[in-house]
Amino acid sequence: MKLTKKNLEQRLDHVYDVIIVGGGAGGLSAALYLQRYLLSCLVIEKGRGRSFWMQDLRNYLGLPPDTPGRDLLQQGQEHVLSLGGDYLRGYVENVEDEGETFAVKVKVGKQDSIQPVFRSKYVIAASGVIDHLPSLPDMQNVFDYAGYNLHVCMICDGYEIANKRCGLFVNSEKAINTAFVLNWFTPYITVFTHGLAEVGKEMRQKLEDYGYPLIETPIQRFVGENHEMTGVELADGSTIPLETGLIAMGSHYYNEYLQGLDLEWKGGNLATDSMCRTSHPRLFAVGDLKEGINQVSIAVADGTLAATAIWKDIRRASPPRRWESNLIGAVMP
Amino acid sequence: MKLTKKNLEQRLDHVYDVIIVGGGAGGLSAALYLQRYLLSCLVIEKGRGRSFWMQDLRNYLGLPPDTPGRDLLQQGQEHVLSLGGDYLRGYVENVEDEGETFAVKVKVGKQDSIQPVFRSKYVIAASGVIDHLPSLPDMQNVFDYAGYNLHVCMICDGYEIANKRCGLFVNSEKAINTAFVLNWFTPYITVFTHGLAEVGKEMRQKLEDYGYPLIETPIQRFVGENHEMTGVELADGSTIPLETGLIAMGSHYYNEYLQGLDLEWKGGNLATDSMCRTSHPRLFAVGDLKEGINQVSIAVADGTLAATAIWKDIRRASPPRRWESNLIGAVMP
Repeated sequence: MKLTKKNLEQRLDHVYDVIIVGGGAGGLSAALYLQRYLLSCLVIEKGRGRSFWMQDLRNYLGLPPDTPGRDLLQQGQEHVLSLGGDYLRGYVENVEDEGETFAVKVKVGKQDSIQPVFRSKYVIAASGVIDHLPSLPDMQNVFDYAGYNLHVCMICDGYEIANKRCGLFVNSEKAINTAFVLNWFTPYITVFTHGLAEVGKEMRQKLEDYGYPLIETPIQRFVGENHEMTGVELADGSTIPLETGLIAMGSHYYNEYLQGLDLEWKGGNLATDSMCRTSHPRLFAVGDLKEGINQVSIAVADGTLAATAIWKDIRRASPPRRWESNLIGAVMP
Repeated sequence: MKLTKKNLEQRLDHVYDVIIVGGGAGGLSAALYLQRYLLSCLVIEKGRGRSFWMQDLRNYLGLPPDTPGRDLLQQGQEHVLSLGGDYLRGYVENVEDEGETFAVKVKVGKQDSIQPVFRSKYVIAASGVIDHLPSLPDMQNVFDYAGYNLHVCMICDGYEIANKRCGLFVNSEKAINTAFVLNWFTPYITVFTHGLAEVGKEMRQKLEDYGYPLIETPIQRFVGENHEMTGVELADGSTIPLETGLIAMGSHYYNEYLQGLDLEWKGGNLATDSMCRTSHPRLFAVGDLKEGINQVSIAVADGTLAATAIWKDIRRASPPRRWESNLIGAVMP
């Protein structure tokens, strides 16, 4: 059921089999598998994650390519609720390992917020990442184009960039290397550092060799209309015409609530085994939080794997169910 | 484009980047990723695979649980065609490694069939499995219920079996062990060997301890109506009432066309690395052909991984694309 400030109290002495932090593709897939394994779970979603912002899914099998990410999330949420799963809008502040259970502290509500603590045997971390965007004087100007023809994922949207004049927006010299993969899709690349990166001699030479202009002047705003970006206006007043763009400024990982646990990390990602189990045997990580490519299809499969591994654990620890009367025709409960 | 006997000739001197054997969930997902990576691919589908028979998808995020498997396949086929991928109905008879390319021999058409040979740099084996069904005098009687309430996959349909009186249909003593996992969902299990399995003393004792009747008399037919199986009529004329069933008689792997290649196997499965690459560097295996759980979500992610690995290979072997004029405002082709 959908939990709210008003009705969540009834779940405060329940120990869920699994609490899932994050109601994106990975978390929802895990939840629907868990409910179908007859386990109880609670999905806690803070809202407005990466897939929520996707205007078109494009590469997820079974849905038309113009399906918005939020439709996938809505369908998944209904699916989980129809199977008896619990769903709560809230922000997970902390996860504490109590030995047999985890205590998950959540902030619910923006005004007069409350901080209930839910408990579960297992936790699935499915809280994902959000892409860093260029910081401009008017952020609404960025939101007007990000997710439309100002892309954040080359694997998702390289196809839409093909042979177009593309701005590559970076915040470090290292990120400029994206240009030398992006050129599979288009060679008409202009690199914008927004004044954030120190670019060495070698990289400058390489860009020159490839014919990719490097613009270090800060960006004032994106120009365009109806969510179609057509160029960049710089702080010096000049304008660079573009047909599309790719932002490669890294991501923020939503993993602060895990910082009190002693987990193995690989850079910003959680290290996991082939079933998405982290170095903590009762904590799993799915989707963009773990290593690998950040794709809806991968997150959905991760949810399947984590749920299946948890089911196996719990099933093996449970007493076997016998048919108490083996007479064929016996009355069943 | 859709290839047929009439138009396929125009593709016979084309070397595809990838030929995908099998147009199920894994193959179609790979194809749509490959086309979006600007690679060329041909999907060859023999028809009537495992997902085609699924009456309800139930556990694939984003689609309502009552979506038939064939709707997923239809949507995926349209998606791939819309991206410029080729699609052919045909049966792959053989794959030969020619060094730089594979030669893929296909039988097209049931009557007056032809046997064209297509070529590609890479092959993705996505031809899946099909479940063995009990062999009864009237097979139509089996098809009337298989995929409805006579299930073939516990992970997919255990939820529908919960606390129901369930027939477990096996063809070996080993397969009887399925009962001791299935009892997570229901303890009201009757095991049917259809006269195919020799059951030892120990297993008989275990079944008795659990209270699960063992029926070794061959099955005459399933009884029921409107695709709802309500019991089994045995060869001796007696009838065992049931509410649902699970067939656990193993699967046939569609992998005959690979037998001429020297590949590493793990039982019936192809051994692969984490990107679905087999022991042959240009041959990938996705979905049910490789190790792991047989689920649509896994196959779809496998397609993503295999396509991405192939793109990386081909991209790295290609000359870099420079912007030939680096003058901002230069006319683009």
